[in-house]
Amino acid sequence: MELDAFFIPKSVALVGASRTPGKIGYVILESIKSSFKGPIYPINPQATEIAGLIAYPNLTEVKQPIGLVVIAVPGEAVKSVVEEAIKLKIPAAVIISAGFKETGNKEGEEELKRLVKGKIRLLGPNCLGTFCKDLDMLFLPRDRMKRPVDGSIGFITQSGAVGSTIMDDIAFEGVGVSKFASYGNAIDVNELELIDYLGKDLSTRAIAAYLETIHDGVKFIEICKKIVKIKPIVALKAGKTAKGTEAVLSHTGALAAPAEVYAAAFRQAGIVEAKTTEELFDFSKVLASQPPLRDNKIAIITDGGGFGILAADASIQNGLELPELAKETVKALAAHMPEYAIAKNPVDLTGDANSERFAGAIAVVAKDPSIHGMIIIALAQVPNMEESIVDVIRDAKMHGKPIVAVMNGSEYTMKLVRRLESFGVPVYPFAERAAKAMFALREYGKVLDRFAPVHVTKAPERKAEKLIAKKANKAAKKKKS
Amino acid sequence: MELDAFFIPKSVALVGASRTPGKIGYVILESIKSSFKGPIYPINPQATEIAGLIAYPNLTEVKQPIGLVVIAVPGEAVKSVVEEAIKLKIPAAVIISAGFKETGNKEGEEELKRLVKGKIRLLGPNCLGTFCKDLDMLFLPRDRMKRPVDGSIGFITQSGAVGSTIMDDIAFEGVGVSKFASYGNAIDVNELELIDYLGKDLSTRAIAAYLETIHDGVKFIEICKKIVKIKPIVALKAGKTAKGTEAVLSHTGALAAPAEVYAAAFRQAGIVEAKTTEELFDFSKVLASQPPLRDNKIAIITDGGGFGILAADASIQNGLELPELAKETVKALAAHMPEYAIAKNPVDLTGDANSERFAGAIAVVAKDPSIHGMIIIALAQVPNMEESIVDVIRDAKMHGKPIVAVMNGSEYTMKLVRRLESFGVPVYPFAERAAKAMFALREYGKVLDRFAPVHVTKAPERKAEKLIAKKANKAAKKKKS
Repeated sequence: MELDAFFIPKSVALVGASRTPGKIGYVILESIKSSFKGPIYPINPQATEIAGLIAYPNLTEVKQPIGLVVIAVPGEAVKSVVEEAIKLKIPAAVIISAGFKETGNKEGEEELKRLVKGKIRLLGPNCLGTFCKDLDMLFLPRDRMKRPVDGSIGFITQSGAVGSTIMDDIAFEGVGVSKFASYGNAIDVNELELIDYLGKDLSTRAIAAYLETIHDGVKFIEICKKIVKIKPIVALKAGKTAKGTEAVLSHTGALAAPAEVYAAAFRQAGIVEAKTTEELFDFSKVLASQPPLRDNKIAIITDGGGFGILAADASIQNGLELPELAKETVKALAAHMPEYAIAKNPVDLTGDANSERFAGAIAVVAKDPSIHGMIIIALAQVPNMEESIVDVIRDAKMHGKPIVAVMNGSEYTMKLVRRLESFGVPVYPFAERAAKAMFALREYGKVLDRFAPVHVTKAPERKAEKLIAKKANKAAKKKKS
Repeated sequence: MELDAFFIPKSVALVGASRTPGKIGYVILESIKSSFKGPIYPINPQATEIAGLIAYPNLTEVKQPIGLVVIAVPGEAVKSVVEEAIKLKIPAAVIISAGFKETGNKEGEEELKRLVKGKIRLLGPNCLGTFCKDLDMLFLPRDRMKRPVDGSIGFITQSGAVGSTIMDDIAFEGVGVSKFASYGNAIDVNELELIDYLGKDLSTRAIAAYLETIHDGVKFIEICKKIVKIKPIVALKAGKTAKGTEAVLSHTGALAAPAEVYAAAFRQAGIVEAKTTEELFDFSKVLASQPPLRDNKIAIITDGGGFGILAADASIQNGLELPELAKETVKALAAHMPEYAIAKNPVDLTGDANSERFAGAIAVVAKDPSIHGMIIIALAQVPNMEESIVDVIRDAKMHGKPIVAVMNGSEYTMKLVRRLESFGVPVYPFAERAAKAMFALREYGKVLDRFAPVHVTKAPERKAEKLIAKKANKAAKKKKS
């Protein structure tokens, strides 16, 4: 596909490559070197070698096919580089450089637009470019910004700052990203094409978008409507108030429409709207890892009573339901819990619960036909909680119903959180955020009902169920003996 | 004061002290040992020595004055220990043990209540007890839950789980706590007395409360009304929906009233309401470290355009205003910024801003008489941002106007965040949370207008201003030369 050149090019040239540590042209080269397996051509008229690579004075002197050119020179020098790239028939360019519409240089931007039209595909200017497992061109040094592992969130952002800090968060929690693109002023490639591209990208299971402007509302809705039948899209629109809109104008030089227009467009397009940066982050990781919630009835399983109350409040406030558990469920629960634990929804295993008690309760509740999803809250800090709680919560996925977990704390807890996230279980520090994540899964469930009503929830895997039941029985027997 | 016995007792006895690592009675003893400077008496009929301390078979055998007894024995054994403590005239007891109203044992709880009435002060049962720099009795091992540094948030919680995980978060960010109390079923000491105590406690600058029930609404309002004239109170009420209220009943066995009743009571009492656990955490740290916002007009200073837009949106949505900057401010700003930066509110210093550019802009904006508070957004990841940004933002406090900062990212950023927090600057990962924190400061400003109208904002310290101006001039000169 056409945009492949931005993520998996055959070779990469970096115009503005620098030998000076800390310079943007230095960091970008380091990033490319640490990720890209094909030929790399640093361009710098003052150098013959940079970071162990042969350097060239200009693109023409490379005399090899160039798949992508990354441009990180001062704004005023960009035009001639682009002209050279066009002459050499390079298929794609990323302009990292700022100094266009966003700084008032509308003329320069229009000129660039006319120049590239139909001749070369362009990402930027005023952007970070792209990141994926095969190519990292971010100018944020790796010791300052962690890179996410390979994963299933496709993330596009108009703002490099918002994008890169969320990427840093994503990496910190151990969540994975398939492809990331910061597209800045969007002279050529914009959100429409990027979303379309990620929609077709097999490694992307959910698309997250931070948008300041939408370039063609009708086309945007049309593209998204098709994609959401296959994978969810979550979007945050910045510039929702008069002041915010004014700031958008300052930032990327584009005019923004009022919030209501976007909210309506999102609904129409089947997009799950994130109202805050935190929701964009929280929703994208749950939508990328969990099946949609096909009914609003969920259960809460907790070992902290207070967390259970907060999760119950937030679930109800987010339009979810906490149905009564079936009689058989309550009966079966009792077998896995001490007398003083609470065998109703929310299920409170109490503060002395360990992994085994969780495993038993999860297996029972997951089988209740009135329960369509589970919020599992486990406190890692209590002395008798084992690290195996991570495996227990991971195994909860085998029932085929969406689950989200709550674990809150510092280093020790974060170690467990990272393991759980690496297993594809979204974890949140607060009960309210987990309930909101469930809400996002329900929203996407509704989108599927609207756009793809033939889609049905897969029946829970009998095999998996049996395996879990067997394990629980074995553990119970062991305990009794 | 009477409750001093729970925080600074003369000596502590621990009934249920254990020699087995991982046991609650072991962890509590470790916690006490690592914090308490006075005599510690482990009580365990099976031991003569525990963790290097002489152990006693019972309280009577200690034969020394005991200031506080911490009880961590099975629920059914609690009563006889309390009887012994009363007989020995021990002034205060903490019952960590569960097994009372929350597990359906209403009778046992009533019996205990009758037993202690007027004879001994009691915290719990079913709680974590207390934590402060002089005494730590938490049964969460230190390698699983970090302890906050000594600071100015007084934090009371009915739920031990919610309390301890937030404490772990607080510690992770480097925020400080003055006194912490988990009071569980609140047979004797409850939220009323604890809030009153923290109101009088000189080391506490803001009170945070997680409440499931309020034992006496009228008295609660009366107590809080007095305190909020001097220090802010932020409270989260759990059990706001029918389901949540039901869960409260399961948890601590108390009945909760509908949400509206509490919201109205909070307003009447001058309490800043936190609607989520995250807000309880976010609001308490800003209220403990920043002066109230006496007017809703604030400025945003950012080096990330997208963050500026998000902060603008969220500020407006939270009832704040972003006034135009005075002409002199705009003019002075221009001297500290390159041409392409945006010298209006939100002030966008752009992605290549360094500490110096921030320092200049902050000094100028802080002097604008129409600006009453600042949200400062700095991205630590960009290559040319120096670590000295921490000092620059800290110095912004010298202008006497409330500030909140936004920094988002993983390890590298968190290192800077912790330093900033240790200087008393609240830092948030997302623009929206910073705007909400400003909202909390404004809410408290309104409370002061209502309850303590004589209170006026101190004029910015002339001395500090001059010092900053001098620094900025010096830096500017240096740059030119």
